[in-house]
Amino acid sequence: MRRLYHQPFDPLSRKIRLLLAEKKLECTCVVEPVWERRETFLALNPAGEVPVLVEPEGRPIWDDVAICEYLEEVYPLVNLLGTNADQRAEVRRLIAWFDKKFAAEVSKNLVGEKISKRFIAGATPNSSAIRAGKQNVHYHLDYIGYLTEQRNWLAGTELSLADITAAAHISCVDYLGDIPWKDHPGAHDWYARFKSRPCMRDILQDSVSGVQAARHYADLDF
Amino acid sequence: MRRLYHQPFDPLSRKIRLLLAEKKLECTCVVEPVWERRETFLALNPAGEVPVLVEPEGRPIWDDVAICEYLEEVYPLVNLLGTNADQRAEVRRLIAWFDKKFAAEVSKNLVGEKISKRFIAGATPNSSAIRAGKQNVHYHLDYIGYLTEQRNWLAGTELSLADITAAAHISCVDYLGDIPWKDHPGAHDWYARFKSRPCMRDILQDSVSGVQAARHYADLDF
Repeated sequence: MRRLYHQPFDPLSRKIRLLLAEKKLECTCVVEPVWERRETFLALNPAGEVPVLVEPEGRPIWDDVAICEYLEEVYPLVNLLGTNADQRAEVRRLIAWFDKKFAAEVSKNLVGEKISKRFIAGATPNSSAIRAGKQNVHYHLDYIGYLTEQRNWLAGTELSLADITAAAHISCVDYLGDIPWKDHPGAHDWYARFKSRPCMRDILQDSVSGVQAARHYADLDF
Repeated sequence: MRRLYHQPFDPLSRKIRLLLAEKKLECTCVVEPVWERRETFLALNPAGEVPVLVEPEGRPIWDDVAICEYLEEVYPLVNLLGTNADQRAEVRRLIAWFDKKFAAEVSKNLVGEKISKRFIAGATPNSSAIRAGKQNVHYHLDYIGYLTEQRNWLAGTELSLADITAAAHISCVDYLGDIPWKDHPGAHDWYARFKSRPCMRDILQDSVSGVQAARHYADLDF
């Protein structure tokens, strides 16, 4: 059986879980406490980070980019990168937008401070980072609204890894109740469509001890 | 003519310059002062970051991952990603190693503190970050030595984007004289082979005002 080593509130791991589900590829998901630096995990990935995908009788694959490209190459039936080089460039641009820009400006400041830091002994949330994250998120939700005014999904007519990547980040922040949906109807409509997809079912059941999910987190009608 | 918007000491930009040169693709390189947030550049890439590649009559492509994958798809004659999905996963794993791990542990601490900060008004180098970078680099040079004991190039028999990515980072740090070559003969031999490739010629002529290049920086016999 295929195995994915992951962290439930790591957006890069969520991206892979969503991608596997969209491609209807079965997988055993193993939560890896990366901060313990377990020797058996370091033998799989000397970088010590998740997500790591292990195919039956295959070599472990890290990082998220390598896993996505691998799954697209080996299981192309459900295509999530686009059908020509220009389309794929646009999908990958938006993946970078969320995995680099949204990650640094929003996810790190909110999910990093409020969830990830719980697993680091002695670490306390930085309130000015949290404030910055709450402010920055507006700009990104506006950008989603702007894109979906012109396109059916973020990168074009078809659902793509751009939507999956955006939803991976936004769903983590939404667990915390930090997405101001009322101010961003365009982004809300896009997320409502994505949230109702079967690939989101597992994600919407995630929880972390000590941090309660926002009331609407798993609600399809939010 | 193809144009690349870049920063000379940004390892992600150097990676693209090296890739273009290995593929023998001509390109006009334009240094973009990203900190000025020029409107015409933001129109090309709303994320405001380099590298951005603009093909003749093509849409601008950002980020480095999107550019690399695009160039591999559209100009496959010189293959730098590998010939099957497993090989490509290994190449991409090592790209991530250098662009994420080496970048965070070494490049950011040394190139970021000593060069990039010169362009930010009022910023001063953080000496403890510099100390950490100088310490961390040993582990990565050991890893290069370990890999090249078993393989001709970092990811296997053939030169790949893994070597290009590693050299992009290491050449920036080497400009500063912060690569302890004498302690790492395996990494030294690998870099000596890479450094003598024609793709490195431009890179070895880069300079930044106020920071002198290490004496051996452009020397092929170092």
